Amino acid sequence: MTVSILSRFAAHGGRQLVARHTSRATGTEMTFAIFLPPQADSGPCPVVWYLSGLTCTHANVMEKGEYRKAAAEAGLIVVCPDTSPRGEGVADDEAYDLGQGAGFYVDATQKPWATHFRMKTYIEVELPEVVAANFPVDLDRQGIFGHSMGGHGALTIALRNPSRFRSLSAFAPIVAPSQVPWGQKAFPAYIGPDPAKWRRHDAVALIEDGARFPEILVDQGEADTFLADQLKPELLARACSDAGIGLTLRMQPGYDHSYYFISTFMPDHIAWHARRLAA
Amino acid sequence: MTVSILSRFAAHGGRQLVARHTSRATGTEMTFAIFLPPQADSGPCPVVWYLSGLTCTHANVMEKGEYRKAAAEAGLIVVCPDTSPRGEGVADDEAYDLGQGAGFYVDATQKPWATHFRMKTYIEVELPEVVAANFPVDLDRQGIFGHSMGGHGALTIALRNPSRFRSLSAFAPIVAPSQVPWGQKAFPAYIGPDPAKWRRHDAVALIEDGARFPEILVDQGEADTFLADQLKPELLARACSDAGIGLTLRMQPGYDHSYYFISTFMPDHIAWHARRLAA
Repeated sequence: MTVSILSRFAAHGGRQLVARHTSRATGTEMTFAIFLPPQADSGPCPVVWYLSGLTCTHANVMEKGEYRKAAAEAGLIVVCPDTSPRGEGVADDEAYDLGQGAGFYVDATQKPWATHFRMKTYIEVELPEVVAANFPVDLDRQGIFGHSMGGHGALTIALRNPSRFRSLSAFAPIVAPSQVPWGQKAFPAYIGPDPAKWRRHDAVALIEDGARFPEILVDQGEADTFLADQLKPELLARACSDAGIGLTLRMQPGYDHSYYFISTFMPDHIAWHARRLAA
Repeated sequence: MTVSILSRFAAHGGRQLVARHTSRATGTEMTFAIFLPPQADSGPCPVVWYLSGLTCTHANVMEKGEYRKAAAEAGLIVVCPDTSPRGEGVADDEAYDLGQGAGFYVDATQKPWATHFRMKTYIEVELPEVVAANFPVDLDRQGIFGHSMGGHGALTIALRNPSRFRSLSAFAPIVAPSQVPWGQKAFPAYIGPDPAKWRRHDAVALIEDGARFPEILVDQGEADTFLADQLKPELLARACSDAGIGLTLRMQPGYDHSYYFISTFMPDHIAWHARRLAA
């Protein structure tokens, strides 16, 4: 449960840290970023988990996501994990959308991935324990959000664990991986060819199968080149409508899939979580 | 005067562009970032020039500086040039503090640098012409700021051209390059061994020699590892005090030299410029 602090930066009155620890879930060293707002100096703070998209490490959103100003003002701790195990002994693929940088937040059951690719257990079970053992987080006040593959992670983790989280949002999430090329490539590789096993890792399928979350904020750029083929927010809109889930889906004209999009709407997402995580 | 747009991102209701053009000052292709706030769609806007520090291109502050939210709210165009000419035919040095990425905002007179390293003319003369020919900038309302070597650039350019700028600020600037190792290495290489020729490129010396600017904002981290040897803000404080220049020097406990420092105080700097550039 011990972490080593790799770097430490003063920022917006708080501290942006990068921490590393040995993970029993993945069997590797794992690195995450954690922002502690100034309020964390005087007691536990709510925590929001930010899950990143394909190819990203903890560093991309830490450097480009522009979450610190709003998080410092709201008194939120923001934790940004890596998107997969990494390293020389870890299986990989030449493609950007499989292997290292592309964990898809599942526990792999298939060779060669099953050895280390256990991001579901890492994010759902181990990382909260590690963070709680080392930082002043109030685990009764948790939110989760993410981008693209990380939006898929946030949606599915929250839908499977609705009592753990008070707030949920996503930027350009993969809402139905079973129905799009990214998921139709990754899921067979990681968890096998049977689509019935994919449904616990697919937000739309989870909702169809009865999972619920009170309300969800999603921002989606209309100029996102992945919109029509990979993201398909209309599938989430239909599932939420049928299930009575309060989805706020904002289509944003002109915005693409980049961190310029994420950083633009980051203050709104931090505010969304802050309101629902207030004491 | 034509520019080619290399990339274009919607951000904070405006547009973050990267542009490239052929520079007659440097004899190379030069790349700069320019943020156009939403107000630029309906008419000319004030422009603030941000000069970056050692090793940086236009991209570092564009990705990590977190200036867009405040600039969009204030209606400021922000231009972020490169820190030197670059490319295969351009002289370079293995050190990070000489050659490509380390132009020091001077016009070099010494071999091998004199051929391309003409960043003073580029920033003072050519780039404003290029920007004005292609973007809706109001050149009657200009501000300038920068970080470290770019803070040196901002201070010296504004002190030599006080009528061009209404506002001036810096993050952790090199205030007296003639008196510190970075300048004592770069100035002989670029403009020769005679310290008398360095004074036009040294903010403290310029003030001692009579240059004036009405008021200056400087933020400086107290945990900045370059503070004692390279930055020496006390020299600027003394020169401004002697000259009657209104210097707001804010020593920031715990902050280092990084973009986490810059991005923390960026909103204050944008606000400083916005107030002085209001119509």
